[in-house]
Amino acid sequence: MTKKVCLVGSGNWGSAIARIIGANTQQLPEVFERDINMWVFEEEVNGRKLTEIINTEHENVKYLPGYKLPENIIAVPDLLDAEQGLKEGAMAVSLIKGIDFDKNGVVLISNIIRDALNIDCSVLMGANVANEVAAGDFCESTLGCSDLRHGALLRDLFNAPTFSVEVALDPHGVEMCGALKNVVAIGAGFCDGLNYGGNTKAAIIRLGLIEMKKFCFKYFDGVKEDTFFESCGIADLITTCFGGRNRKCAEAFVKTGQSWEELENTMLNGQKLQGTLTSKEVSTILKAHNAEDQFPLFTAIYRIAFEGADPKTITQLQPAQQ
Amino acid sequence: MTKKVCLVGSGNWGSAIARIIGANTQQLPEVFERDINMWVFEEEVNGRKLTEIINTEHENVKYLPGYKLPENIIAVPDLLDAEQGLKEGAMAVSLIKGIDFDKNGVVLISNIIRDALNIDCSVLMGANVANEVAAGDFCESTLGCSDLRHGALLRDLFNAPTFSVEVALDPHGVEMCGALKNVVAIGAGFCDGLNYGGNTKAAIIRLGLIEMKKFCFKYFDGVKEDTFFESCGIADLITTCFGGRNRKCAEAFVKTGQSWEELENTMLNGQKLQGTLTSKEVSTILKAHNAEDQFPLFTAIYRIAFEGADPKTITQLQPAQQ
Repeated sequence: MTKKVCLVGSGNWGSAIARIIGANTQQLPEVFERDINMWVFEEEVNGRKLTEIINTEHENVKYLPGYKLPENIIAVPDLLDAEQGLKEGAMAVSLIKGIDFDKNGVVLISNIIRDALNIDCSVLMGANVANEVAAGDFCESTLGCSDLRHGALLRDLFNAPTFSVEVALDPHGVEMCGALKNVVAIGAGFCDGLNYGGNTKAAIIRLGLIEMKKFCFKYFDGVKEDTFFESCGIADLITTCFGGRNRKCAEAFVKTGQSWEELENTMLNGQKLQGTLTSKEVSTILKAHNAEDQFPLFTAIYRIAFEGADPKTITQLQPAQQ
Repeated sequence: MTKKVCLVGSGNWGSAIARIIGANTQQLPEVFERDINMWVFEEEVNGRKLTEIINTEHENVKYLPGYKLPENIIAVPDLLDAEQGLKEGAMAVSLIKGIDFDKNGVVLISNIIRDALNIDCSVLMGANVANEVAAGDFCESTLGCSDLRHGALLRDLFNAPTFSVEVALDPHGVEMCGALKNVVAIGAGFCDGLNYGGNTKAAIIRLGLIEMKKFCFKYFDGVKEDTFFESCGIADLITTCFGGRNRKCAEAFVKTGQSWEELENTMLNGQKLQGTLTSKEVSTILKAHNAEDQFPLFTAIYRIAFEGADPKTITQLQPAQQ
């Protein structure tokens, strides 16, 4: 039986991925239904409804202007209409790079989806800047899943000649990479703000990768070392530490002395940084477990970002207690 | 019994490391003799002998101008005078990033030293751009050795607050990382020459790291996966793919269409690129073992560099045969 695909979200990243999955369902009629419902948060653009523009012009003129969407992407303003009810055998995949937190610690977005819908949820993470994906530049991505059959089906949905998807049987590791790399990017931005050279920045990125691994191994079950060699690991970490808003705002934090809130207002139109938020929550977890000594880089980044520590302490790390 | 240190070479990198080991032998009189002989290829600079300038001004004005050498670094123009004969228990450490080749394949520089002197030889590799090390910018380095006692002693010689040395019991893996990263940097430079974005470059760096691992595992015994997480692995790879002459010349190769020889003449004053040389030799080995299919990135880089293949084929890799 063919699978019906519903895409929830239609921002920059959602629209870029719509171009790939829309083409793929057209080419695999024995596997997927052709038409894909895309839930769109309804808003007016130049006096017209965004859903109407997408369904007639086949372009998300607000969030991904300049790139056509396939005609089988159908914009739907009501979420329940879009997903048409969960059928037997339904599965989810989260493309959200971030994590949530509650009083007990890390809450994975995929777990929120799993718990709310009572279905399996995979994740797709990697070095995937949305506009570059939309432009058809070659990149790779990692599909983290706990069920190989789900992985194989979802790979068919996402893989393309310019979007090379590898399956990793490690959904938690893949998802945590997508969140923790933003903390390391804050550290990389501090280095740039201090005008440090390539040796130092490479050392911070490397130490960051080591602490990402250690954090995942310590607080999640079943995380695999190989995951950090996938696109979601080292590749996404590199892109984020050389490009990306977290790096950029952290550089400005050191150079201008402005607060994070001021920087978010002036540089990001008030949007919130993921890296500082995650840094704060990671630090809360480390404090609760009395484990700050074991994560000297994460701890130094937090103290510089939120406790007024000198940015230069980023390279004055105490050796980690094993 | 204290150990006498002899430094063979006094270029940019040799002079930078002299600053660290000169300070360390002063601070560890129970372990090392204070004075270090540094073999200097004798030449005239402004009418004076370079050794005489170093021994009076304590500065290598030709290869590391602007940085003082410790006064216990003694320039010696004759190599045999400098090393004063090999005593019982002597050990070597190679800081040369590169490999040699003969008709049977890869020849490690450390093996040439081992065979010629009949002593153990460790290696020191990492994200260590010489001028940044001389400036005292924080960085890390990896000491690859086969004997933990040698590793501990050599770590005392090289480690410093701004030069953090970790020991890896994997001399071949560490040394091969230092050579193979230059091949990947050629590929990263091709991406830059094609004006590809961050996603693509990160994917090429990641695929390069995977092929570096695979090449080491296939052709050397005892190489460890952890080595690629050390400074000599991922950190040096990152620095080399974002800075460095191999990346720069490969970018120009795509943009200008000039030959490697022309680029070496115009951009490097006639010095030879390590990356293209290593690419050629790696390709010879892969052909001899009928293993090109297993290394699609290394093979694509070689074909672009030497067989006139379109640079765009860097992202049109066939999946590796396992």
